[in-house]
Amino acid sequence: MCGIVGYIGERQAAPILLDGLEKLEYRGYDSSGIAVCNGGKIDMVKAKGRLKVVSEMTHDGATLPGTIGIGHTRWATHGEPSDVNAHPHMNKDGSIVVVHNGIIENYLKLKNRLIEKGYEFISDTDTEVVAHMLDNYYDGNPLRTIAKVMHRMEGSYALGIIFNDHPDELYAVRKDSPLIVGKAEDGNLIASDVPAILKYTRDVYFIENEEIVKLTEDNIEFFNVDEEPIEKKSVKIDWDVHAAEKGGYEHFMLKEMYEQPKAIADTLSPRIQDGKIEIEELGMTDEDIRAIKKINIVACGSAYHAGLTGKYVMEGMARIPVEVDMASEFRYRDPIIEEGTLVVIISQSGETADSLAALREAKQKGAKVLGIVNVVGSSIAREADSVMYTWAGPEIAVATTKAYSCQLIALYLLAVKFARAKGKITDTQMAELIEDLKKIPDQVEMLLGNQEKIQKFANRYLAAKDVFFIGRGIDYAISMEGSLKLKEVSYIHSEAYAAGELKHGTISLVEEGTLVAAVLTQEDLYKKMISNMVEVRSRGAFVLAVTQEGNDEVTKASDYVIYIPNTNKYFTNSLAIIPLQLFGYYIAVGRGCDVDKPRNLAKSVTVE
Amino acid sequence: MCGIVGYIGERQAAPILLDGLEKLEYRGYDSSGIAVCNGGKIDMVKAKGRLKVVSEMTHDGATLPGTIGIGHTRWATHGEPSDVNAHPHMNKDGSIVVVHNGIIENYLKLKNRLIEKGYEFISDTDTEVVAHMLDNYYDGNPLRTIAKVMHRMEGSYALGIIFNDHPDELYAVRKDSPLIVGKAEDGNLIASDVPAILKYTRDVYFIENEEIVKLTEDNIEFFNVDEEPIEKKSVKIDWDVHAAEKGGYEHFMLKEMYEQPKAIADTLSPRIQDGKIEIEELGMTDEDIRAIKKINIVACGSAYHAGLTGKYVMEGMARIPVEVDMASEFRYRDPIIEEGTLVVIISQSGETADSLAALREAKQKGAKVLGIVNVVGSSIAREADSVMYTWAGPEIAVATTKAYSCQLIALYLLAVKFARAKGKITDTQMAELIEDLKKIPDQVEMLLGNQEKIQKFANRYLAAKDVFFIGRGIDYAISMEGSLKLKEVSYIHSEAYAAGELKHGTISLVEEGTLVAAVLTQEDLYKKMISNMVEVRSRGAFVLAVTQEGNDEVTKASDYVIYIPNTNKYFTNSLAIIPLQLFGYYIAVGRGCDVDKPRNLAKSVTVE
Repeated sequence: MCGIVGYIGERQAAPILLDGLEKLEYRGYDSSGIAVCNGGKIDMVKAKGRLKVVSEMTHDGATLPGTIGIGHTRWATHGEPSDVNAHPHMNKDGSIVVVHNGIIENYLKLKNRLIEKGYEFISDTDTEVVAHMLDNYYDGNPLRTIAKVMHRMEGSYALGIIFNDHPDELYAVRKDSPLIVGKAEDGNLIASDVPAILKYTRDVYFIENEEIVKLTEDNIEFFNVDEEPIEKKSVKIDWDVHAAEKGGYEHFMLKEMYEQPKAIADTLSPRIQDGKIEIEELGMTDEDIRAIKKINIVACGSAYHAGLTGKYVMEGMARIPVEVDMASEFRYRDPIIEEGTLVVIISQSGETADSLAALREAKQKGAKVLGIVNVVGSSIAREADSVMYTWAGPEIAVATTKAYSCQLIALYLLAVKFARAKGKITDTQMAELIEDLKKIPDQVEMLLGNQEKIQKFANRYLAAKDVFFIGRGIDYAISMEGSLKLKEVSYIHSEAYAAGELKHGTISLVEEGTLVAAVLTQEDLYKKMISNMVEVRSRGAFVLAVTQEGNDEVTKASDYVIYIPNTNKYFTNSLAIIPLQLFGYYIAVGRGCDVDKPRNLAKSVTVE
Repeated sequence: MCGIVGYIGERQAAPILLDGLEKLEYRGYDSSGIAVCNGGKIDMVKAKGRLKVVSEMTHDGATLPGTIGIGHTRWATHGEPSDVNAHPHMNKDGSIVVVHNGIIENYLKLKNRLIEKGYEFISDTDTEVVAHMLDNYYDGNPLRTIAKVMHRMEGSYALGIIFNDHPDELYAVRKDSPLIVGKAEDGNLIASDVPAILKYTRDVYFIENEEIVKLTEDNIEFFNVDEEPIEKKSVKIDWDVHAAEKGGYEHFMLKEMYEQPKAIADTLSPRIQDGKIEIEELGMTDEDIRAIKKINIVACGSAYHAGLTGKYVMEGMARIPVEVDMASEFRYRDPIIEEGTLVVIISQSGETADSLAALREAKQKGAKVLGIVNVVGSSIAREADSVMYTWAGPEIAVATTKAYSCQLIALYLLAVKFARAKGKITDTQMAELIEDLKKIPDQVEMLLGNQEKIQKFANRYLAAKDVFFIGRGIDYAISMEGSLKLKEVSYIHSEAYAAGELKHGTISLVEEGTLVAAVLTQEDLYKKMISNMVEVRSRGAFVLAVTQEGNDEVTKASDYVIYIPNTNKYFTNSLAIIPLQLFGYYIAVGRGCDVDKPRNLAKSVTVE
């Protein structure tokens, strides 16, 4: 996730910007840069790689005089990590400079319009659009210009902006991306997050959506999009730096769980246009899609579980046969790849060694490869024939939550698109599916609100030794992910079973007090699941059920029920996983485990 | 497995036969019958179903006078369970009567020759061939006739025979099927197993392969196939009845493990003819085989694990794509069945509810269905388009061992046959594969001999809480079965992982002293597996390795090694499973578990 810092005041800006960016490194980034306004001229230094590169290029900022500036660490979204794609970005004559966090969803439309007007683009970023837009509408009044541009942008953004001809002013705005303002002794600051400014001040203003801030050396003014001044009160921050990095959350895992509504929306909304699903990056016509005879999904860990969900959704909706493999198995089993096969590789980091090797194996066998990847410009993104990004932002916790949720969304989008292209669903059905997809972020938000209830429940099971997750069909896929979440952070031996398979052996492990988590979100399988729940319960198991609101019968067959809202039967995994994530998290917290960095595990597995 | 009882002496035979058969009921059967020779005439009563039926038909034997007779409980092999297929079987004029345990492998050839000579067959059994053969060669000398017939039969057999014109003599022979002789106060007995005769005597002769016995009221003579008399000593049996049922083994599970060499040979050898693989029951020409575009294997529990092995073997050898499903999932997931799909349903009992439902689902979707089943005439056998039987005999222990091993063999046979039909292997390669297949029974026998070493090792891990089985490729499939064996009988929470997937979550469960069983039988994956073993070992795991003789590098990466003999890379599962079965068994015994009847489990799961 990109990091923004800005300063205006008495001191030299560059060292303060570099110091602030350093504090935002935890957010993940792949390039960085700063721009300083210095007596009628804006100087900019930016580079791919670590922040250290920019520090060295500027002798820790010393070579850049000037007391007003903006800085940025970039986590690539549109355009791979490179010097030219790094922020800040400028208009052609270098009189306006901008840093940006977020995604401008309609950037292509805006870009094309600007190109028609003669604007030239040098980067692949959506941010450069903002610089040229500001140039295009600039009439000498920064506030009015910024408001105009805001009216024309869709998506999410936090922006820091300097106009060279207003060298005593620093502007910032935000919508659906974080931005705060700090009021210090010898100047004022903007930043994506508190840690960047804690060294200078603890007086902070939280900017709301679509608010504009104008900072001078000794003043801070707030405006709405109608350029009307608004009043804001500052807040005293009493967090330590460490807590601040997590935005007040106790762990990155919790923070990232709470980022899911936004991450899902970011992944979803750019692909829904005029009631249709547009996945430009796919580079496939409807004809191409109809030519797909089989899909192989290959991934590791949670991404593999997302793939298992994907199989149910894709086969069910689009009736294309799907085979899901663990990458470490696929690459060595000499898989049979026939003509018309699309191989989908799913990886958060895009660097997972086994998945990358599987990608190469698939390409070598002649398959077309689509990557579903979170890190732009990563190896898998580069080597795949096409890439569909999950816009989850950087994930710090080893146990994935938001990246996994975005992988599900990407697979749903593909399934709906393929189903429509193959004529397996009508336009009306597609419209209904899209409506249900759009509701998911709010539904997830609502489920996250249950956190206290789940924490209480989890606290009763801190001493659990063996936990079983059961489900049928698509609920089996989510049981596997729920089980992995619990086991990887809490070190409790949990295992997922297809509920109907329990009685072929594993039910012998169920005894008095064994915790069994049953997921039942599929109406046509309710009865079967309830039988299985009764089976384990009659052998002494304590049954936790996750099911839809309105499924009242389940209360009789279980000891504790968590309800999820209604959605299309293919999308239930996105809701059912939320309480399971929370459950795993709170069990681990209660047991005193190192939640963000479980023993023996690495975030990105770049070895076999 | 069929049961044989015979009596000749002073007392009425029928009640003794019925009583003996009752003691053999534990062996499993589906029909029964007795024949008594009574003053120049042989009376026969037989019926499908429980032994009680025959008892009631004869008023517990009272209605059948005569002091010489033979009885039989039948476990169907050739020909479904029915009155007419029940034993005994007679020649046309009823002057020779025979009961049989085993399989006459060349029975079809013999039958055709007899039909040419004008013999008529009324049953579907291979046993009726024996009756007519005896008739055909009979020259008034029973001993000479029996020897002649033995020279012409291939396969396994234990026979009890009465010639009406020798009403004071009872004959018995055996080859590769069990038969014992008991010497009692008021007569002599033959039986498949000790429990049948314990009530009358504890003096027993064990008959060796290809020996012939002639019993009279007060004498027992033994001959070799050259009709030369041989000397034998009787043995005093001091088992109790309960132990006797298990042939001296502590549990059925152990007994059945030790029956594996024979069960495998029985499943294998009838299908290898003149250096080719003949699976008549399949009813498929090479052309039909070449038309197969995809195979779906559907099963539950261990049979599902056999299917996973089958996928590797079939895809590797015959290059036909295989998808393996748990039956409880397959039946409800609306599977995509395209033209040219062969669905293979695997089930020991042939009555597994989910598998049967999956079969119906597959047929309804237009697939051709092949059943791999152990119980002849079972529902799956009847409803499948074709059936390939595993000749494992009845399995009493809930945890399958020999039936599973025979399922593997059936799948190997199919794979080799399909590979040859598709031209993926040459005749020479097929000959080599067949040679390796033929060696498996002896290799399994040898591995069973390691039992003491494994028992000792198991005793050190009786207190284990969590055990992990890891493997790659085909070794992953056997890891799953090894894990299931352990967990279902010992109630230890064990879990199998694709070794390369461990680091994506589950490795966080590995701590000091965790037992990890690593299977590595695939040369091209040795190095990768050794890396994974080092990974878990460096985190404190105790590593038990199962690998080939000669793989010395493994000793450095593990704490204990069990070696298996060399075989073709596709057949290693059949060997690797033996130590894992023994390990699971001895852990359970050491923990005092009810090995044959684990809590919560049923042998044949006829409910969903």
